[in-house]
Amino acid sequence: MPPFATPPISPLSITFDGQTGTMSPEGPVLTRRMSDLAGLFADTAAWEAAVADGDPVVYQVASSPVPEAEGELPQSITTILPGTVAGEFHMTKGHQHPNPQGEIYLGLSGTGGLLLFDGERPQWIDMAPGVIGYIPPGWAHRSVNTGDEPYRFLAVYPGNAGHDYGWVLANGMGHRVYRGEGATPRFEPFTATP
Amino acid sequence: MPPFATPPISPLSITFDGQTGTMSPEGPVLTRRMSDLAGLFADTAAWEAAVADGDPVVYQVASSPVPEAEGELPQSITTILPGTVAGEFHMTKGHQHPNPQGEIYLGLSGTGGLLLFDGERPQWIDMAPGVIGYIPPGWAHRSVNTGDEPYRFLAVYPGNAGHDYGWVLANGMGHRVYRGEGATPRFEPFTATP
Repeated sequence: MPPFATPPISPLSITFDGQTGTMSPEGPVLTRRMSDLAGLFADTAAWEAAVADGDPVVYQVASSPVPEAEGELPQSITTILPGTVAGEFHMTKGHQHPNPQGEIYLGLSGTGGLLLFDGERPQWIDMAPGVIGYIPPGWAHRSVNTGDEPYRFLAVYPGNAGHDYGWVLANGMGHRVYRGEGATPRFEPFTATP
Repeated sequence: MPPFATPPISPLSITFDGQTGTMSPEGPVLTRRMSDLAGLFADTAAWEAAVADGDPVVYQVASSPVPEAEGELPQSITTILPGTVAGEFHMTKGHQHPNPQGEIYLGLSGTGGLLLFDGERPQWIDMAPGVIGYIPPGWAHRSVNTGDEPYRFLAVYPGNAGHDYGWVLANGMGHRVYRGEGATPRFEPFTATP
């Protein structure tokens, strides 16, 4: 008998639809509405108005059944719906990994960007189908839909990395990302939400 | 200043070509010729004849620059060229992770399979473009080209997982995979190479 034990999860064949953002077999699906994004957008009055006006879904995260557990390598597809709050693009909350671990995002459909921040330097990676954005350990990360269609990406990340959302609320991501001229986003230095 | 340090690698935008198996920017490229695969195929005489007859490349692994280091999440594309050794399909050496960590394979082009073995039970996942094969921690894994075209997949794995090839040579993978009738491979119980 070889010196290793069978872990609780079995090998899995997983398929996904890059046009709808679904995974099969399905795991948990997380939905973030505008009201879940308090403190993210610079224009609080415009954010409050959007919450009052139907509290739309801003993004969804559909996971495979692979658990967020030590030793596992879970995957999920995030769909960020298009739109802005007073010109500031729809975005994910953004987080740090309390246990510093790398992560990859693979663009599936639509166009967006990956905003990274190590506490001093913001970096931006243009994302599109087929592009891998590599998030090294220690970099906070947020995704932004910069287009007019849903932006979708597949994430693969170590199951023990964890999510610290509070760090981003406190420290920001270095930049805010606004709709600019044509297809080019406009970046402004981060300012705390009033 | 937030309580984390910038690691040595910066955020990266990585692209890849699923039809040629290349990554950009490029990292190391590993080439395995028939002579590198001693002890893998059941028919040693047929393997020796293939080594003598030009020692063909059986597979290549093209990596991105993300290093195999603690906390990083490297990626690579493996291309297994089509063919058999006395009917036994071209395959990778197969390995265990000495540090048990999950891994994913994402099919890119061609058709193949992912053979997994936990020391007692072999499992098989049919791989094709768009299929994710999930390798849980503790399962040895090998890829097999079951088609007539190059079979390519993207691998994503924790940088501290490591590679133990000796375990597979000693314990096998539960099954051997042969060309069968039509597109269906034929499985035979593992026998040690004489």
